[in-house]
Amino acid sequence: MSHDRAVLDALLDSTIVGHVAYVDEDGAPGVLPTAIARFGDALIAHGSTGSRWMRLVSGAPAAVSITSVDGIVVARSAFESSLLYRSAVLFGSFRALDGEEKADALNAMTDKLIPGRLSEVRPNNKKELAATLVLSMPISEWSLRVSDGWPEDTDEDVAGDAWAGHVRFGQAPVTVLDAPDLRSGIHAPESVRTLRGTA
Amino acid sequence: MSHDRAVLDALLDSTIVGHVAYVDEDGAPGVLPTAIARFGDALIAHGSTGSRWMRLVSGAPAAVSITSVDGIVVARSAFESSLLYRSAVLFGSFRALDGEEKADALNAMTDKLIPGRLSEVRPNNKKELAATLVLSMPISEWSLRVSDGWPEDTDEDVAGDAWAGHVRFGQAPVTVLDAPDLRSGIHAPESVRTLRGTA
Repeated sequence: MSHDRAVLDALLDSTIVGHVAYVDEDGAPGVLPTAIARFGDALIAHGSTGSRWMRLVSGAPAAVSITSVDGIVVARSAFESSLLYRSAVLFGSFRALDGEEKADALNAMTDKLIPGRLSEVRPNNKKELAATLVLSMPISEWSLRVSDGWPEDTDEDVAGDAWAGHVRFGQAPVTVLDAPDLRSGIHAPESVRTLRGTA
Repeated sequence: MSHDRAVLDALLDSTIVGHVAYVDEDGAPGVLPTAIARFGDALIAHGSTGSRWMRLVSGAPAAVSITSVDGIVVARSAFESSLLYRSAVLFGSFRALDGEEKADALNAMTDKLIPGRLSEVRPNNKKELAATLVLSMPISEWSLRVSDGWPEDTDEDVAGDAWAGHVRFGQAPVTVLDAPDLRSGIHAPESVRTLRGTA
């Protein structure tokens, strides 16, 4: 268990989606993926004002799991093999943001998902802001696990012939495709040309 | 909302980790990532017999979210931009597997995470099997969402100068590293040389 806030922040900043767990009206567990971003000292999520799960989690206890699978620990036995990962769970309650804070948080979300895009497009208008719910949970109660160790095989297995090591995943390559209705003469901008896949 | 079981199976087979939501002893929501695999018509997860969350979810209602972020839908506005994704949520209860079924399910998990590895290493022994809990949830109640459409910009935005399209993530490259205690002369086997990063 790590208590390193810098490691947590790096995970939140490089991972696109978090999984939000909540307890629904019937007391049953629910979970949904949602784009997450760090906004100051809070985790934010956004969606339509008509979103059922966002209404359910507003003000109620929630847990958010953010996971990056970084590769495979290949041991000399199936039993000792495992995953290389970083995994955080945040606990707390979401509250809806309003006004300037809401607009700024939405911009932080866009800037995380498509860095540099904000300077290439028009700002969100009032109608768009009104149609969007932005939820914020303070980054205060969290747990963090990082698995980056080597296989822990038995002496007997180490003395055997099986291989052991790490298979580490790198950053995914990207393919850029023009929308079918793109007007001729418009080319992919800087933000798109420099966008990278998840690490 | 898709009801295509083949799309669901492809998602389960290509995604390493699922997020399991449960309700803990205090009625609060909990969520944890865990490696998942398909085993016949069930979703399986495994862990230590000492795992708290696995004991909590055994026999109790649970929800499992499996998500693949496949890229970014870059629209002509921040508001219309979104993610390319496939996302499933399975609902049900986990039960612990025993005997031959448990051993087979563990092999299915290994074969999913490191295809071909089973033929290169010794089988799990009795002690290892006894130390492992394997949970199974039938694939019967589920929802599936696939986002792969083009941006839906307003006519005014389409007539403007901003670019729109998809940035699609490809398969991550991998780096193979020998364990520090690997005996000399042992080289990465076929299973490791052909292992691919998440798509």
